[in-house]
Amino acid sequence: MSAFVALDPRTYQALPGEFETTTASELERLATAARAAFGPYSRLPGAERARFLRAVADGLEAAAAPITARAVGESGLPEGRIGGEVVRTSNQLRMFARLIETDAWLDPRIDAGDPERVPAPKPDVRSFKRPLGPVAVFGASNFPLAFSVAGGDTASALAAGCPVIAKAHPSHPGTSRLVADVVLAAARATGMPAGVFGLVQEPGHELGQALVLRPEIKAVGFTGSRAGGEALMRLAAARPTPIPVYAEMGSVNPVFVLPGALAARSETVAQGLFASFTLGVGQFCTNPGVTLVPVGQAGDRFVARLAEATNAAGAGVMLNRAVCDRYGQGLVELAAAGGRPVARGADLGGADAQGAHGTPTLWEADIRAATTEPGLLAEVFGPSTLVLRYRDMRELLEFAEGLEGQLTATVQAEADELEGLAPLIDVLAERAGRLILNQYPTGVEVGPAMVHGGPYPATSDGRSTSVGTHAIDRFTRLVAYQNFPSELLPAALR
Amino acid sequence: MSAFVALDPRTYQALPGEFETTTASELERLATAARAAFGPYSRLPGAERARFLRAVADGLEAAAAPITARAVGESGLPEGRIGGEVVRTSNQLRMFARLIETDAWLDPRIDAGDPERVPAPKPDVRSFKRPLGPVAVFGASNFPLAFSVAGGDTASALAAGCPVIAKAHPSHPGTSRLVADVVLAAARATGMPAGVFGLVQEPGHELGQALVLRPEIKAVGFTGSRAGGEALMRLAAARPTPIPVYAEMGSVNPVFVLPGALAARSETVAQGLFASFTLGVGQFCTNPGVTLVPVGQAGDRFVARLAEATNAAGAGVMLNRAVCDRYGQGLVELAAAGGRPVARGADLGGADAQGAHGTPTLWEADIRAATTEPGLLAEVFGPSTLVLRYRDMRELLEFAEGLEGQLTATVQAEADELEGLAPLIDVLAERAGRLILNQYPTGVEVGPAMVHGGPYPATSDGRSTSVGTHAIDRFTRLVAYQNFPSELLPAALR
Repeated sequence: MSAFVALDPRTYQALPGEFETTTASELERLATAARAAFGPYSRLPGAERARFLRAVADGLEAAAAPITARAVGESGLPEGRIGGEVVRTSNQLRMFARLIETDAWLDPRIDAGDPERVPAPKPDVRSFKRPLGPVAVFGASNFPLAFSVAGGDTASALAAGCPVIAKAHPSHPGTSRLVADVVLAAARATGMPAGVFGLVQEPGHELGQALVLRPEIKAVGFTGSRAGGEALMRLAAARPTPIPVYAEMGSVNPVFVLPGALAARSETVAQGLFASFTLGVGQFCTNPGVTLVPVGQAGDRFVARLAEATNAAGAGVMLNRAVCDRYGQGLVELAAAGGRPVARGADLGGADAQGAHGTPTLWEADIRAATTEPGLLAEVFGPSTLVLRYRDMRELLEFAEGLEGQLTATVQAEADELEGLAPLIDVLAERAGRLILNQYPTGVEVGPAMVHGGPYPATSDGRSTSVGTHAIDRFTRLVAYQNFPSELLPAALR
Repeated sequence: MSAFVALDPRTYQALPGEFETTTASELERLATAARAAFGPYSRLPGAERARFLRAVADGLEAAAAPITARAVGESGLPEGRIGGEVVRTSNQLRMFARLIETDAWLDPRIDAGDPERVPAPKPDVRSFKRPLGPVAVFGASNFPLAFSVAGGDTASALAAGCPVIAKAHPSHPGTSRLVADVVLAAARATGMPAGVFGLVQEPGHELGQALVLRPEIKAVGFTGSRAGGEALMRLAAARPTPIPVYAEMGSVNPVFVLPGALAARSETVAQGLFASFTLGVGQFCTNPGVTLVPVGQAGDRFVARLAEATNAAGAGVMLNRAVCDRYGQGLVELAAAGGRPVARGADLGGADAQGAHGTPTLWEADIRAATTEPGLLAEVFGPSTLVLRYRDMRELLEFAEGLEGQLTATVQAEADELEGLAPLIDVLAERAGRLILNQYPTGVEVGPAMVHGGPYPATSDGRSTSVGTHAIDRFTRLVAYQNFPSELLPAALR
């Protein structure tokens, strides 16, 4: 048994409490229990699983005060933001509860037989979606609640009928323990099978890899870095039985500022963009890391305004030492790739400088270099954006065509220039999971139409989404029943 | 340039005609053209693409005579079977044409915004399915039409809006050329973009691998051997940008004969099973390769009846030399794994023995050995089945729990024993794509509810199906549009 503690990123001081690293034998026990729970849990009527999800949501709200206090300490995120995450997390759970209270999400299909058909009788065939089996969910560093132990991946997997083993992010073991206790209490209170949920804790990543290799695990949900996601993809593909990995890995989320938008509302766009790329100290997967601005005086003034806002800003607390160090390293690599620093906010000094602090930065580079130097378009996770200046729509289109897969692509344009935008929108629709007009990419609405995904390398599997009701489909597969009498059919297919 | 010929598997004599191996530069040209076609083709209204699919269907029927003659020569399959495949292939194309004539298959979702919402305004978010991009389709040896150049994968990919590059199976270059010409003529006649379809021919597999590595290719459809499918999975996962591979690789499709079925209709089940495992000389992915029979006299009589039918049968023409050799090798490996030969049909002698002939065989093995010796449950592609005798439902359940992923699982049971079947059905539903009661696995109905898929290793991706309308979803991904005015939205989202 080895124990570890959590550090407060504001001070790098240890927070109270020690957490046991899950042992290999406990991991095996959790996996075996999840496997045993799968059959009975997957066969429960949707309304029963919905009761469980609602009980988790209620439990989170009831425990909001201690959870929030701990999460603020472990993540450095402000109390208001964490409070919002509690609401979001509960809302996600209730959204999936509503979804599974009727069978429509199963896409039940009944194709009646016809024994008289020639040349061959037609069989009765019925199909629907079935859960895949136990799912491993990796908590994200930047959403200690909404993309973590009881976050979106857990909610969608549990809703689908899959037991979940959550791998806590090592930065917030205390928050993870509190949330896991809420889930386990809700499971007991609503009579769910033992093993429907388990929590794995460790200070690093070894057990997470062991979890993905467990034969009982049938799918993986992950939100985090590209390196982390790709490691899980490789592990899962090399298993004796490969399994799907849904890794949301991030992107640079380009923002295309068109001349008309600059002419009409340069100041508003500059403020909105600055707010978006510095929101939460830039620690969002949808952070706008690249901004396309026209050459010329209007563009110069826009960049000057962004620089002014950046210079006037101060450092913010980042999530943990690793995120903070990677932000610094990312800026070094951006400079090495040809990025030129334009503006930089104030660093902290004195005793305050101890913790994980990130300073907003603004960069510029040659747009033509960006198409040949991949380092310019690598994600820098933190409060920075790289400005690229373009001469005309043709140059903008060429740039867009060279983009890798993105979670989002944003266009700022005026009504009178929309007509010429179709080619750009077409190019972006091939490369991003969500296209945004005259709003900003940060802030991912939870709802039936949301797509938080995108082609590789934004995610490992750009066909689906990790936010919104579509997310449940990731943990299902199709099964058909041929020539079955009603009493042997699942209820949704009778 | 190198040329190759097709062999008639009935005689191993060359058929008329020489076929050029596609050159590397021609492959590149096809891929570039497919990429260029993707934008305009994907933006066509569904009804336009439906016209194209219908024109292909009409063209196949108009050219049925020469296509059938050539396919019979290249596959050794009887004329009636090939004629049925023409109908099936045209029907598949028309089924997808009907599907895309309205937008429902796109799953368009509109989540209206609410600027008054507190604490934050709600954005307008709309999403639907978009095609992935050019798709590589590998023709199967055992369905020279229905799972080949204009087969199910091609129909579903073209319907989704994806250009297709078909890799012809090396056994039927002439059939593939004729069918490709029909597709190309239909594309021209209906005004599709050049590059929407291309054909790659070669005597082996190298160009197929090069095709999967082309950056323009965004997904792969394959029907064939496990070795072939897994090679493509590895290639696709190792690309700089990994892509999904939908490989349908086959399975042993267990048939569970219950005591009541034996008591009520032993002779009928024996006839039905014999017909199923020898249909088409056993060359179906859904061929029942393993049969579970109760111990005792009723089971003995059932096996004796199967043996009698097998002994009385004669050899049939197999698809090609490789399939024939692998069948022989598979039987050697089955014996080495502990399979005991029970019955064997008549071999061919004299001049007839020249071609690719497969003789029906019946095998037995110890059911307990089957859970520890994977060689007993490896697919043997050809007209054979392995009988395993079970003592009770518990032994049957243990066996079922040890099964790998299967395309199908079949139960033969009487009404009065259905009540006890639920546990077995539950176990099988976790392991198979389609469950069949009192019918046989061969024969895959094409319709909205069909699932021709199953957990690995039956397929590379058990979440979907390669037959039926669901198959179109494999070649799509979700995209959301946030805060877009009507005129910039795709028509389905307005």
